[in-house]
Amino acid sequence: MPETSPLALAQSLIRCPSVTPEEGGALSLLADVIAKAGFAVERPIFSESGTPDIQNLYARIGTGGPVLLFAGHTDVVPPGEADAWSHGPFSGEVADGMLYGRGAVDMKGGIACMLAATLRFLEARGPGFGGSIAFLITGDEEGPALNGTVKLLDWARERGERFDHCLLGEPTNPERLGDMIKIGRRGSLTGRITVHGRQGHVAYPHRADNPIPGLLRLASTLIAAPLDGGTAHFDASNLEFTTIDVGNPATNVIPATARAVFNVRFNDDWTAATLGAEIRRRLEEAAGNAIRFSLDLQPSNSPAFLTRPDAFVDLVADAIQAETGHRPALSTTGGTSDARFIKDACPVIEFGLVGQTMHEVDERVAVEDLDRLTAIYGRVLDAYFPA
Amino acid sequence: MPETSPLALAQSLIRCPSVTPEEGGALSLLADVIAKAGFAVERPIFSESGTPDIQNLYARIGTGGPVLLFAGHTDVVPPGEADAWSHGPFSGEVADGMLYGRGAVDMKGGIACMLAATLRFLEARGPGFGGSIAFLITGDEEGPALNGTVKLLDWARERGERFDHCLLGEPTNPERLGDMIKIGRRGSLTGRITVHGRQGHVAYPHRADNPIPGLLRLASTLIAAPLDGGTAHFDASNLEFTTIDVGNPATNVIPATARAVFNVRFNDDWTAATLGAEIRRRLEEAAGNAIRFSLDLQPSNSPAFLTRPDAFVDLVADAIQAETGHRPALSTTGGTSDARFIKDACPVIEFGLVGQTMHEVDERVAVEDLDRLTAIYGRVLDAYFPA
Ligand SMILES: [Zn+2]
Ligand SMILES: [Zn+2]
Repeated sequence: MPETSPLALAQSLIRCPSVTPEEGGALSLLADVIAKAGFAVERPIFSESGTPDIQNLYARIGTGGPVLLFAGHTDVVPPGEADAWSHGPFSGEVADGMLYGRGAVDMKGGIACMLAATLRFLEARGPGFGGSIAFLITGDEEGPALNGTVKLLDWARERGERFDHCLLGEPTNPERLGDMIKIGRRGSLTGRITVHGRQGHVAYPHRADNPIPGLLRLASTLIAAPLDGGTAHFDASNLEFTTIDVGNPATNVIPATARAVFNVRFNDDWTAATLGAEIRRRLEEAAGNAIRFSLDLQPSNSPAFLTRPDAFVDLVADAIQAETGHRPALSTTGGTSDARFIKDACPVIEFGLVGQTMHEVDERVAVEDLDRLTAIYGRVLDAYFPA
Repeated sequence: MPETSPLALAQSLIRCPSVTPEEGGALSLLADVIAKAGFAVERPIFSESGTPDIQNLYARIGTGGPVLLFAGHTDVVPPGEADAWSHGPFSGEVADGMLYGRGAVDMKGGIACMLAATLRFLEARGPGFGGSIAFLITGDEEGPALNGTVKLLDWARERGERFDHCLLGEPTNPERLGDMIKIGRRGSLTGRITVHGRQGHVAYPHRADNPIPGLLRLASTLIAAPLDGGTAHFDASNLEFTTIDVGNPATNVIPATARAVFNVRFNDDWTAATLGAEIRRRLEEAAGNAIRFSLDLQPSNSPAFLTRPDAFVDLVADAIQAETGHRPALSTTGGTSDARFIKDACPVIEFGLVGQTMHEVDERVAVEDLDRLTAIYGRVLDAYFPA
């Protein structure tokens, strides 16, 4: 009988030092366990010039539909100062009911719960459960994400794989398990404004053209008025300036150029293209003929997307409510995730552990949460594949 | 008979490579020439921990009053790319009626003219000309100016030296010789604004506090309204932002702090203290309780000063008009100069060569201008010490 304790599986995964781009043994461990449960397992490796080769995993059991896809990643961000941890970042130690380790919530813990729930489901129902379950797990989510989910989805599509729904196990809950399902994500667009002036001495400003007042004007314009008022499922789009840099060390010199960088997290009112055009329009209007500037918009593969609430969302929300006693919020807040790629393959929603300690020292998860998330995923499987 | 050709003296000085802090032989050459003409010459060396020792020169002829002081500097800024010069920066070559070299106008040329005029005056009038002439020449004007004019004036005062008027030979003419006397200089004040926020992820702006909008607001406030409308002899004070720096390379991170530096060239409506207080008041008003900032005002030894037009200014202007045919403008524009220190010792005005090429490649002066400036200084001596 395979190991179906999510705690034991999570501990084994945490003990694999799989800091991006290292596989660290995590995908091999997963492959072993899932193959023993009857899955056909593939381990495609993707590469891109200038980046390290990345290992990935695709596994499926069943041949017919519907196909439910579990998605996630086994790579983790670096532990930071290992000495600052209460328990070693790759120790998988349990103390006071908490499992410690890098990836405990993001998202080896979530993968362990998916796996445990699936093994239990197959034990109970056998392979003829009336559909297919697939696992699409990358080792390149926390890195540049060039050799991960995007290529894995392409690879699967070329092999004829089709999915009906996807559940991505990222940590979605702000405070307690069951708080929040993510049904969409805002898009991300980065822009760089450069204002061009003419260098000179501060004592002779009429012979120079200080670019800083122009940059102040343009930057102020972009934060003066909101981009939109939000949509049915999204908050208002938000623009943040992340840096302004002139780099002029001489206090008696007027600089030649000034640069600012901003990032917009935008809702489904926009595509990156329409938003970029609107930002350019606002800047041009503020600049008139007085300010010479250039705007460089970073090509982005982070569009806004929304999985409109439907029966599948309800099914997951019901499972959460049955297990936790409260109905999760349907949210589109937070950063980007690989769901932005999966949404082109099938409807995708995200639900996992409590994200509070992700990417931090002493990342940890309540052992109780692992059991409850396993039970929630189990309820999803039972409802998705009714007996 | 001593050499009284300003061209020959200027060439000799240019050939001394006296880039700050190097003496380069320039002060020794000056000392030799002036001692032969009967001056008592002193060569005080000043030092300050952390800076190189600097050579200076003080010379005087005569014991009674009135005392006319010629002031200047023999140090020069670096030549930059020597290959870019039409003639070597320390060659002192003459081509097409122009003398080339670093310091040709700023201000070895001016010193050569002072010296030539003085030698000729003494030749004509002898040592009993009814007063005293002094030279106060530093080797630390283009550098940090810590071991130059300030200490030389202190040193002279301690020895009981008193001056009635000073003529500083900096290049004051924008276009042609005779355009402009400087009768004052604006003050200089540098300030650094730091806005304090809280770092965070752009996807969670409510958990962070972006300092950049606050900095945009504060900086915009300072350039929105003029500091003043100018005074009888000064243009309006002018504030320029010289740099803004956040230095955040991560486009998905809201930074913790943002900094801007500005420099004000201010008129005689202000002291550095009153101006600093006004700037702080404007920033506090704009910040309210919403923006946490600090303002660091650099202690400045560049106050605004004015030598009110009087008989001495008229005397110099008359000399210029007699020689060039036009009446010079009485100006307070441009950068700072050592006149800001001398003004505490006696009334000081500045008149020298045409400044167009100063600090640039191919710094040069018309040989004709050297002769005419020598004649102007000669007329000043004649009028200041009537026979
Ligand atoms: Zn993750
Ligand atoms: Zn100078």
